[in-house]
Amino acid sequence: MNRQTFALIEGYMLTSMKDAAHDKEHVYRVLNNAVRIAKSEPEVHWDVLLAAALLHDISRPEQIADPMVDHASHGADKAYAFLKENGFAEDFCSHVRACIRTHRFRKTERPATLEARILFDADKLDVAGAIGIARTLAYNGETGRPIYTRDENGVISDGDGDTADSFFREYKFKLEGICGHFLTEAGRALALERHAAAKAYYEALLQEVRDNTGRAALDALLDA
Amino acid sequence: MNRQTFALIEGYMLTSMKDAAHDKEHVYRVLNNAVRIAKSEPEVHWDVLLAAALLHDISRPEQIADPMVDHASHGADKAYAFLKENGFAEDFCSHVRACIRTHRFRKTERPATLEARILFDADKLDVAGAIGIARTLAYNGETGRPIYTRDENGVISDGDGDTADSFFREYKFKLEGICGHFLTEAGRALALERHAAAKAYYEALLQEVRDNTGRAALDALLDA
Repeated sequence: MNRQTFALIEGYMLTSMKDAAHDKEHVYRVLNNAVRIAKSEPEVHWDVLLAAALLHDISRPEQIADPMVDHASHGADKAYAFLKENGFAEDFCSHVRACIRTHRFRKTERPATLEARILFDADKLDVAGAIGIARTLAYNGETGRPIYTRDENGVISDGDGDTADSFFREYKFKLEGICGHFLTEAGRALALERHAAAKAYYEALLQEVRDNTGRAALDALLDA
Repeated sequence: MNRQTFALIEGYMLTSMKDAAHDKEHVYRVLNNAVRIAKSEPEVHWDVLLAAALLHDISRPEQIADPMVDHASHGADKAYAFLKENGFAEDFCSHVRACIRTHRFRKTERPATLEARILFDADKLDVAGAIGIARTLAYNGETGRPIYTRDENGVISDGDGDTADSFFREYKFKLEGICGHFLTEAGRALALERHAAAKAYYEALLQEVRDNTGRAALDALLDA
């Protein structure tokens, strides 16, 4: 892909992000991840991978406006239409479309080509490490969710099996086991490397908020 | 303080928090911190400390509604009025008021009594560690601030000297040096212990988002 084509697709990505200032940073991280992973593979269709990485989240605004919209399949069609309009070959356009359609974690349709698997892993890599913690906590704040909840006995839950939304629940459901879902060797290796920081952080936070060292002294005071 | 008095003050705290589900957890952590720190001190006016810890943030809603309101001085007067109405002695009420007035980091009026210093440290302790990271990131998401910004050359800033708001800026301005601001020995020791997790997290995140390993390969592709 030459710089002119890259700039054309990048420009469309930038105009398609609802909040370009924040979301484009995710796109650039995914692009960087995709290139890192792809370097470990013998034969990659680079143009497909770069276009798919740049365009994979262009329908986030549509999903935010209407949660019933799946940004993966919506974005896949939107990317396909954009590329067709700009004269890219049918094979290329439909391959990019397939990559974007399957980049989200779903049980129905799985990534079918190497480029689709690389995009999937590159996107998951932005959830696996410290950045995944930051994105999850920021999203939690944005949507007014708490960091943790308590069970019926007042004990702070570690998130496991929780039904109520919280950061700890999201960590247990989505982040804790994420390294098991990677589809490429290079992606999995990077994920394992990064996940150590996320795990260490979750464990430190859980220990801090569960600290109840003052409780016995408080009870003694109140019962005195 | 007996359980009945504690429940009276706790009940007032709960009705005063705008978003009791989230904010009360901060209050309970600060209460726990205060008791932990106070156990290391020879003579503590426990009733003053417990009342001040429970009531220290009761004017957060007023500050959220009007950012010109200082929740520390506003909450101090509100707590004083509540305690007076409920028949507490003048000395007690004005001591609690002074603790709450000085719990926020300000250069004008510093905590003047042991109980005021303990409350100050107990509150800062909820910023020093992993929980400070979580609260800052959640607040960032709530207010639409980015995790990081870039300088004029496109390099991701570590937050140092930044003028634009971001999580990294907040870390550099408020969290990084916080251990130097503690007023009690026990508070400082706990802060240093907890801060290690915050520092490790910030450093891992900075390293992750600054990862640019794919850049050279991408440039080579675009220039091919």
